[in-house]
Amino acid sequence: MVKLAIDMMGSDLGPSELAKAVIQYEKENEDVSFLLFGDEKVLTPLFAEDSKRRTEIVNTGKVIPMEIKPLDFLRAKDSSQYQAVNAVKEKKADGIVTAGSTGGFVIGSTILLRNIENVTRAGLCSPFPTSVPGKAAVILDIGANNVNTSEDLYGFAKMGSIYAKEILNMENPSVYTLTNGQEEGKGTDEIVGAYKLMKEKNLPGFKGNCEARESLDGHHDVIVTPGFVGNIYLKAVEGTASMMNDMIKKAFKKSLKTKMGYLLAKEGFKEMKTNMDYRRFGGAIFLGVDGVAVKAHGNSNAYAFYNAIGVADKMVKSDIIKKISEAFHD
Amino acid sequence: MVKLAIDMMGSDLGPSELAKAVIQYEKENEDVSFLLFGDEKVLTPLFAEDSKRRTEIVNTGKVIPMEIKPLDFLRAKDSSQYQAVNAVKEKKADGIVTAGSTGGFVIGSTILLRNIENVTRAGLCSPFPTSVPGKAAVILDIGANNVNTSEDLYGFAKMGSIYAKEILNMENPSVYTLTNGQEEGKGTDEIVGAYKLMKEKNLPGFKGNCEARESLDGHHDVIVTPGFVGNIYLKAVEGTASMMNDMIKKAFKKSLKTKMGYLLAKEGFKEMKTNMDYRRFGGAIFLGVDGVAVKAHGNSNAYAFYNAIGVADKMVKSDIIKKISEAFHD
Repeated sequence: MVKLAIDMMGSDLGPSELAKAVIQYEKENEDVSFLLFGDEKVLTPLFAEDSKRRTEIVNTGKVIPMEIKPLDFLRAKDSSQYQAVNAVKEKKADGIVTAGSTGGFVIGSTILLRNIENVTRAGLCSPFPTSVPGKAAVILDIGANNVNTSEDLYGFAKMGSIYAKEILNMENPSVYTLTNGQEEGKGTDEIVGAYKLMKEKNLPGFKGNCEARESLDGHHDVIVTPGFVGNIYLKAVEGTASMMNDMIKKAFKKSLKTKMGYLLAKEGFKEMKTNMDYRRFGGAIFLGVDGVAVKAHGNSNAYAFYNAIGVADKMVKSDIIKKISEAFHD
Repeated sequence: MVKLAIDMMGSDLGPSELAKAVIQYEKENEDVSFLLFGDEKVLTPLFAEDSKRRTEIVNTGKVIPMEIKPLDFLRAKDSSQYQAVNAVKEKKADGIVTAGSTGGFVIGSTILLRNIENVTRAGLCSPFPTSVPGKAAVILDIGANNVNTSEDLYGFAKMGSIYAKEILNMENPSVYTLTNGQEEGKGTDEIVGAYKLMKEKNLPGFKGNCEARESLDGHHDVIVTPGFVGNIYLKAVEGTASMMNDMIKKAFKKSLKTKMGYLLAKEGFKEMKTNMDYRRFGGAIFLGVDGVAVKAHGNSNAYAFYNAIGVADKMVKSDIIKKISEAFHD
């Protein structure tokens, strides 16, 4: 039986969307049970029906705000997020899923779960949609750290590859350093150093540098970057995609004629929408801490949160923490 | 009379596209003349007709390759790019426009033209299309540097504002630091320091941090970033836009029905295409060196190169170098 700790609070669309996801996942997966952390007055009615069998509600106090400092997180011991992470630390659950504060999640996982031995820095890892339908690119760190060393990036490459293999079923994933040119020697010192390290240590699948422009062409499986740069990258991609989506909508709404055009063309755009929908990936994974920790998007609907739960479940079942630990003990 | 030095070699589409741009610009602007650097056997036939009046061809040797090291650039004294930049240094021309190697352009401008006094680092500055049709966001540095100090970023903000005002006719442009969160204190040390500096010195228009996600919403005029991060940002935006354009084409080509949809909807998409077309901006400007230096896109067609010439012309006429110099002597 896999037991998942769910932080039911702090998401943009509220606990009812998350509850739908939990209820559906519970129905479909008899070997998974849930510890649900949140305000029991809010949660109890949501789980009133047939799904009480393998869900247990743990009443908690305040909700962690989006922006929080480490000390404030540690003081908020009665919060749903603290409690959910702590359940993994105390082995009461096998993994935690939250759609709440990313800052709180990173702080909590780092301090409570701690890094796997020999992991210099844990990194937030996210699959991105690519030009090739159904194929993802795995990018880390997308923002848990500001600055990273070459050693950190080398670690991200190892962990990202394991994630790509175990969770996304990629065989022999290719690995790249994200930088400003393809030739060796391009980029900041830590990237030049990481390139050297991966070559020296013969990191499986390491192919060299990749530029942001080609990163999502479907031929780049795992891409490593320092957290600050990864965060800018993530938001530049999201921002551009969202800007262009708005433009597409506007283009179709321009006149009666273009609206009729939409009716004819929409079957083509449906495929595009499906392919670009990051909700199918569930969210980001905090790789390197000693426990399964999944961060669903803040604006998760039931579909996105269901997928985030699925990722956590798969991570537990594939014993990914042990595999990462072994890879760092070579 | 404005005299522009044009590097006619090294672009992806070849000198004939650039020649069309020069000929058209010369026809339309009687107060502009050109020094054209390149292989005279190639260039002479392109300028055979009526446009010889204010164009002078200077025969040059090798073409600077896309990737070049500083020493190799300095040795290539007979190249079209070296000669064109050097013409500005020697006051034989008022500005240089090239669609050749970005590396060579940055090295050449830095070493030959040198920085304006008190400018710690020059930065490559590019206008980006935004969600608001016709409105650009000015972003620098997009890759002339790897690492930048807070002082550099403060300088970028001053130069970017002057560019936005003088060339893009923005009144009171707003200025932002690109980082991973809106609150003060977010980002790497140099960004936190730049934020502080701009606040202390009351930089006109400074509004604080901006995230990549909202950077292109049309409400952010000048955005400063260290060069490495700016380069990742630029290519993430370009890559995502190009991926989505491919998807739009694919969506419309899916079936006979979607193709008919395109015929009806295309008037809406034409506007989108116009708005997203970076060629209307001509290219990037190297701000901070002591001379007008414009880098057109490597794949410039006549339209893009015409616009790049227009930017250089406007920069000369607005006396932007003097204005930047004054701003750094406060």
